[in-house]
Amino acid sequence: MRYAKGHGTGNDFIIVPDVDDQLVLGPDVVRALCDRHAGIGADGVLRVVRRQTGPAPWFMDYRNSDGSVAEMCGNGIRVYTRYLLDHGLAAGPDLRIATRSGVRAVRQEADGELTVDMGPASTGRTSWALIGGRRYTGLAVLVGNPHLVCLIAKPLDAVDLSGPPEVDTEVFPDGVNVELARITGDHALEMRVHERGSGETLSCGTGAVAAAVAAAASTREWPAAGDVSWIVDVPGGRLAVAPSTTASLLTGPAVIVAEGETSSNWLADPLVTAPVTA
Amino acid sequence: MRYAKGHGTGNDFIIVPDVDDQLVLGPDVVRALCDRHAGIGADGVLRVVRRQTGPAPWFMDYRNSDGSVAEMCGNGIRVYTRYLLDHGLAAGPDLRIATRSGVRAVRQEADGELTVDMGPASTGRTSWALIGGRRYTGLAVLVGNPHLVCLIAKPLDAVDLSGPPEVDTEVFPDGVNVELARITGDHALEMRVHERGSGETLSCGTGAVAAAVAAAASTREWPAAGDVSWIVDVPGGRLAVAPSTTASLLTGPAVIVAEGETSSNWLADPLVTAPVTA
Repeated sequence: MRYAKGHGTGNDFIIVPDVDDQLVLGPDVVRALCDRHAGIGADGVLRVVRRQTGPAPWFMDYRNSDGSVAEMCGNGIRVYTRYLLDHGLAAGPDLRIATRSGVRAVRQEADGELTVDMGPASTGRTSWALIGGRRYTGLAVLVGNPHLVCLIAKPLDAVDLSGPPEVDTEVFPDGVNVELARITGDHALEMRVHERGSGETLSCGTGAVAAAVAAAASTREWPAAGDVSWIVDVPGGRLAVAPSTTASLLTGPAVIVAEGETSSNWLADPLVTAPVTA
Repeated sequence: MRYAKGHGTGNDFIIVPDVDDQLVLGPDVVRALCDRHAGIGADGVLRVVRRQTGPAPWFMDYRNSDGSVAEMCGNGIRVYTRYLLDHGLAAGPDLRIATRSGVRAVRQEADGELTVDMGPASTGRTSWALIGGRRYTGLAVLVGNPHLVCLIAKPLDAVDLSGPPEVDTEVFPDGVNVELARITGDHALEMRVHERGSGETLSCGTGAVAAAVAAAASTREWPAAGDVSWIVDVPGGRLAVAPSTTASLLTGPAVIVAEGETSSNWLADPLVTAPVTA
């Protein structure tokens, strides 16, 4: 099986080209591929499937490393698009990628970075998070998934994010992604993120959008129309976000690191070759 | 640059074929390759170099993921040998591999597993380790590097090995690898290991030998001549060890998972192509 490995700000993926939709990537296979010691290792798998009909010719079949099906990923879709462009499967600068949460517009910038329409963002109520025994005040932000952004003044590396933050379960009955963010300059911030179910990660696309929304709200620039950009530094690199109530834009790098082949004979659950409906 | 990715009981390596000794793998390049998010990801790099002279035609240039030079690795040399065999660079069943700690004999078993001569093992004094607030008694064992093996009766998964064990610095001034081992049956044991500098790992070849030595000592089968085998279950799989005061034998699987190419343009420190003296 051919594959590529790539990452966007440290969020890394195994790209599996399956243009004709022949592979069934069961949860066991995805887990085996994503295993960082016994497999290839990644945060998720992006299967590349051509669509015969519809407004977007390519479908991003995204799976988390635990084998579960996922809808969208702001870092993953950039890596996916980079793969399409590198292999001449699509041409820029404007592309449309089908995902489980609808068709997403992606634009190749002049410097090679990629911008993704992350959809609308909205703010909710003020709440709190207990992190490392300390209580932080945060703003609930919805970017498809729920976030709680705590703007703080002190350096982020002083905060212990190793354990899951405690949050108000009445406000967030299904849990929430928690961002710690600090404004570092004019429309510039740095953030760390604890993703529900994953722990602290090097980068989170929706989290970066949420942090920019909260920062904009703190400087009375919210609601916004997506015409003002914020630099968002995450542990895995630098992103730019133009938050918006209708179409938030996320810009960042995407790198293909390696390409190769893997055989299925080391996988406990062999790859089944049968067409699936995406 | 061509590469392969493989593992032995969960200890994983990037294999870089460099038959004619043209590549300089500087610490920055090794760290970038081994980065589990922005790179290919591995515990170390095994560069495959042909030797013009000497008793062993292949040299294993082994680097840790932090970029440092390493001498030998019981799991790495099996993966290295598997690569040689798969690519027809060497023929079994008996091979000799040059390492920084001398020439090592490797044998391909009938079932495909590989046996490595890990050299002599010797026991030292009894000492202690503080792990998760509890004090354990252990036996010092030297297998090239120092180990402290604590034989315990309770299930290993009940022990918190997340932090570094505290040990007697007068006995181990340079630190020590600490094994927790439990005898599970006739010449069978399970173990977990905290490697100095790396934390808990899925497998450790010298640690498996040390655990077998301590188990043999506990059943009055030490000193041993290497003719009795112990099954050693580690978190990453199953090993077999015949401990010996002169030539301990370590047997286990080695798997090549994927092969591919990576370009150097994403590496901060480009690969320098100049011959080096191994």
